Amino acid sequence: MEKLINSTGCTETVFPLNYSGTKHNSSISSRGPRAVGFVLVHAGAGYHSESKAKEYKHVCKRACQKAVDRLRTGAMALEAVTAALTELEDSPFTNAGTGSNLNLSGDVECDASIMDGKSLDYGAVGALSGIKNPVLVARRLLSEAQKGKLSAGRIPPCFLVGIGAQQWALGHGIPPCSSEKMATKSSLAAYKRNKRKMELAEKTELTFLKRPRSSSGTVREFMPPISSSLDTVGAVVVDQDGNVAAAVSSGGLAMKHPGRVGQAAHYGCGCWAENAHDAKPCGTAVSTSGCGEHLIRTMLARECSTAVQTEDAHQALLEAMQNKFIGSPFLASEDGVLGGVIVLKCKRGDEQNSGGFQDLLEFLWSHTTESMCVGYMSAHDSKAKTHISRLPPGAVAGQSLAIEGGVCRLGVTNE
Amino acid sequence: MEKLINSTGCTETVFPLNYSGTKHNSSISSRGPRAVGFVLVHAGAGYHSESKAKEYKHVCKRACQKAVDRLRTGAMALEAVTAALTELEDSPFTNAGTGSNLNLSGDVECDASIMDGKSLDYGAVGALSGIKNPVLVARRLLSEAQKGKLSAGRIPPCFLVGIGAQQWALGHGIPPCSSEKMATKSSLAAYKRNKRKMELAEKTELTFLKRPRSSSGTVREFMPPISSSLDTVGAVVVDQDGNVAAAVSSGGLAMKHPGRVGQAAHYGCGCWAENAHDAKPCGTAVSTSGCGEHLIRTMLARECSTAVQTEDAHQALLEAMQNKFIGSPFLASEDGVLGGVIVLKCKRGDEQNSGGFQDLLEFLWSHTTESMCVGYMSAHDSKAKTHISRLPPGAVAGQSLAIEGGVCRLGVTNE
Repeated sequence: MEKLINSTGCTETVFPLNYSGTKHNSSISSRGPRAVGFVLVHAGAGYHSESKAKEYKHVCKRACQKAVDRLRTGAMALEAVTAALTELEDSPFTNAGTGSNLNLSGDVECDASIMDGKSLDYGAVGALSGIKNPVLVARRLLSEAQKGKLSAGRIPPCFLVGIGAQQWALGHGIPPCSSEKMATKSSLAAYKRNKRKMELAEKTELTFLKRPRSSSGTVREFMPPISSSLDTVGAVVVDQDGNVAAAVSSGGLAMKHPGRVGQAAHYGCGCWAENAHDAKPCGTAVSTSGCGEHLIRTMLARECSTAVQTEDAHQALLEAMQNKFIGSPFLASEDGVLGGVIVLKCKRGDEQNSGGFQDLLEFLWSHTTESMCVGYMSAHDSKAKTHISRLPPGAVAGQSLAIEGGVCRLGVTNE
Repeated sequence: MEKLINSTGCTETVFPLNYSGTKHNSSISSRGPRAVGFVLVHAGAGYHSESKAKEYKHVCKRACQKAVDRLRTGAMALEAVTAALTELEDSPFTNAGTGSNLNLSGDVECDASIMDGKSLDYGAVGALSGIKNPVLVARRLLSEAQKGKLSAGRIPPCFLVGIGAQQWALGHGIPPCSSEKMATKSSLAAYKRNKRKMELAEKTELTFLKRPRSSSGTVREFMPPISSSLDTVGAVVVDQDGNVAAAVSSGGLAMKHPGRVGQAAHYGCGCWAENAHDAKPCGTAVSTSGCGEHLIRTMLARECSTAVQTEDAHQALLEAMQNKFIGSPFLASEDGVLGGVIVLKCKRGDEQNSGGFQDLLEFLWSHTTESMCVGYMSAHDSKAKTHISRLPPGAVAGQSLAIEGGVCRLGVTNE
């Protein structure tokens, strides 16, 4: 894939700005068919081995296609983003839905959330078991809440967790799916490997005179860490009317404690979508991936959404990732800060003769993890483009970042 | 109780500024014993009947005393705020811990969170059953995470929910407590009343030709709404070293769906604490109360913390409540916006001869609900002051606000 706006690298915590690559410009006329829009998806910020690169790219491609298929029928951003997420969750290669990391008890517990930039409505589920597509429950929570109050004036929930969330889903016609069906050969094998590593680590530690735990400097440094797939999935979409939507879904950290909820279920942390309005000149949509605890404590999705409102979205995102994430005072005690974001910024352009607008769309991704797999497609494209972004050689994951992106113009109707 | 800085009232959505009352100034010398500090607690923003006013005030008084007892032994803010919360949770009159609202299944499910302004560490539990003091589990999550990584490099959780949270608590030596013990005569009676109201509402609705749900304009308007105690509890503390801490605990909305998580478990929404640092000249601590969904979607705790960094904390809080809460675009579709906050703002003052500092402490509360019950006490005081703040006559809950507060000086050591 061609290199987009730029890629930056650093020696300590931030990359010196090092613009390279070509600018991606794709002008899509508003005089053509009305079906316009754009989708950007991620299959996680983490580590994507070269051997599995093809699979990751393939699922991103399919997810983009699903979203664009919806956009072409005139669907709104919220519907298209749901379609992309369902596809990403269904892949056994991603850490979301089927193929999710198993928790300490060997079960699948998923987090997901979705936000509609037009209504600013939001739905989320946490530690949800037994449902194939957690994003569909989040989506349904959002749409049920839009119907107004429940009987006897009760306020509808926007965030449900655990068994209660599962019961609610079943009560709203979403079919059950056994935990066994959602586990894959690979997730079961990883669970067994991780369990052995934990047992070995704990045994070794006991023989080391019960040294106190610490984030560094103990026996733990010498133990092989468990393999944790951080490849949460997510998508951001803009539709033909300029509405944005964002969603995220995750199986969480491998060997997490049952009931642990990560950023994917957390308002402002996992995803964010906000159409342009009086106080915000540009529509923005963000979806995050990485270590949930780091993404929660920095509220990264919302921070990035706010940051890119300034003129230079690329520079603003770079600074947000440097100052509000890697250098965040909220993560000062962490050795490394692991995460990634995908961002859409939609700026209303000049009115065209056709009675619509030419909107300037910027799409960006940035990550502090080894790699991040993304895909993107406009409703005008015949197929999606995919890319695995990697930190430059020598850069340290958790302390360095990569940032890339592109620009395109979209015809948007003014209805 | 004397009126503090001011009280404001409005006709439509905001009160015209109408300063009344006297300024509360309490100068506490730094030459006295080292044990200085201040606590402000709330027993919820909701509706506090005159008949129960004495009980609400009494529990606030006891909670303040518990916190001050800890501060006088030299305890840090985090410890003092935990002591206050435990007392508030144990009261059968508050909607937290014992006496919590029952959910749709008749069970107690609690949310709680705590934040330490010094380390910026955070812990939270959601939809937690079977534990007498949810805040103690949140506190323990915070302190366990401070010990660093778990075996085999696993990242410790900051947010646990449901059965997983309960198992984690039991595994860390926190004793179980049956749901029956946490229910009170009053919460059981309210549950029965509410259940009847719901049944009646749903029956009546069916006869109204299955009209679609709506937030206004349907048969629901004519049904008596269920009685929901919104009186979440919380506290904010500053200790002798100028460290701040905040906590919040809630039984959630009455007749909520099992698994529903409200603002009390939500990072940035239920509580916030941040010592002064390079980017923030003043230490701030905030705890919220009210309708969880409204407080989540406006991230009210963090918004207020950021807002009061400006010179005039009172004006800044008033504007934040008007523009970021009542007038928030995120709640544009809501009929009324229900919530309240307590806020501490701690500004480092001049160095004194004693080798310590005279800090200027502002303490404020504001609410859009009918009433809010607060208590406050400095470590210098012999007893706590309590107050039930009410909207002025004629003001409409959900569309109007009240704001009050005071100022005092604290001697703070520079160790």
